[in-house]
Amino acid sequence: MRVEIWSDVACPWCYIGKARFEQGLAAFAHRDEVEVVHRSFELDPDRRPGDVIPVLDLLAQRYGRTREEAQGMEEHVAANARAEGLGYRTEGRLHGSTFDVHRLLHLAKARGRQSALLDLVYRTNFAEERSVFDERVLVELGVRAGLAESEVRAVLADPDAYADDVRADEAEAASLGATGVPFFVLDRRYGVSGGQPAEVFTQALEQAWQGRTPTPAAAADTTDTAPTGADAAACGPDGACDAPA
Amino acid sequence: MRVEIWSDVACPWCYIGKARFEQGLAAFAHRDEVEVVHRSFELDPDRRPGDVIPVLDLLAQRYGRTREEAQGMEEHVAANARAEGLGYRTEGRLHGSTFDVHRLLHLAKARGRQSALLDLVYRTNFAEERSVFDERVLVELGVRAGLAESEVRAVLADPDAYADDVRADEAEAASLGATGVPFFVLDRRYGVSGGQPAEVFTQALEQAWQGRTPTPAAAADTTDTAPTGADAAACGPDGACDAPA
Repeated sequence: MRVEIWSDVACPWCYIGKARFEQGLAAFAHRDEVEVVHRSFELDPDRRPGDVIPVLDLLAQRYGRTREEAQGMEEHVAANARAEGLGYRTEGRLHGSTFDVHRLLHLAKARGRQSALLDLVYRTNFAEERSVFDERVLVELGVRAGLAESEVRAVLADPDAYADDVRADEAEAASLGATGVPFFVLDRRYGVSGGQPAEVFTQALEQAWQGRTPTPAAAADTTDTAPTGADAAACGPDGACDAPA
Repeated sequence: MRVEIWSDVACPWCYIGKARFEQGLAAFAHRDEVEVVHRSFELDPDRRPGDVIPVLDLLAQRYGRTREEAQGMEEHVAANARAEGLGYRTEGRLHGSTFDVHRLLHLAKARGRQSALLDLVYRTNFAEERSVFDERVLVELGVRAGLAESEVRAVLADPDAYADDVRADEAEAASLGATGVPFFVLDRRYGVSGGQPAEVFTQALEQAWQGRTPTPAAAADTTDTAPTGADAAACGPDGACDAPA
């Protein structure tokens, strides 16, 4: 079974949602047969690289709140994060373009280090004093995740590297009807929106597991009753292939 | 969209089915958004490595036919192959364990060369005079498919290399209800059995494309009507994250 998770590293509920999903997955009997793929989604796709602002200023602007009210919003999220054992700083966090982070996550995916890098980026962005919008920090995180420094630097230096992969993920999210993140898709069959409690993920995994026998495609359905026709030609589990009588 | 194809390199309808599927895919409007993954299935899993016999002898034994009748069966398959522009030898072909070939196809998958290697192995097994049950031939095919010779040799020399991946594919085929190959699964949602005509694949791709919006998982369904609850916490496309009023 395959679970795809669309998220943005700037999205606090994605950070919390990843931890809750992983708890839900740990409680799922067939967890060893689940492949998890993280996909790109930018909440702020129009922001230019280098245009970095404090999160509290962004929240105050966006919601028309005072700085104190904005901080209250962050405290609410922080309480949810801490309940999952995750660190969360409510002051001094920064917001910026996450396009380069997504490009680097695609490199990590190609090298089998995607989840490790995502965890490091989330922790740095939400719990530490350093900025993931600083290229030097990204290089260090990439290396800590197990990537070759030269590859990390090459990807960050070339704005086209993995750019099409980021955009393809985003186009796919739109075509699947995702209107926000985190967005979890199980075997392209079931969707879960939001950073749900762990048990919701376990139940969704169980539901998707039950329903995972593929439906015969309508056009091919007749072959089930005519398995000896040339059109349904196949080789069976005993090695026997359909052949004329 | 993702299409998984379970097949065995010893299965003639898999060889023909891959060509027909690719024709069907070429006629599908969204072909550039389709990812194809080949998965392992052994038709003769109990056969020991090195136990190689002529295909005509195998067919004669298995179906209780004379050698001439067995050759007639091969001629029928050959006619189907040739209709797709594929070469097919009806005499002198060999049958053996395909486990090592599947292990090598998993290496090729990890290196992005899976379809290229599968095409070479099929052509060699069905249309050429050489045996894919000869390790030297497999090394040469691996290199022609773009793999590093040292990696190919290392995988073939270590019987455990990618062995678990082969078995995992086979266990998954069983859990999905596959009773023969080729077996095509579209987004884990629709299945097509057998080497169907190209237009059947095009129709199945269109059907799967239409139905690809994921169903909300039942347990999480209530969140669609209560998007501001903490449990449905998410960040929206304008960058706004759910927060208390």
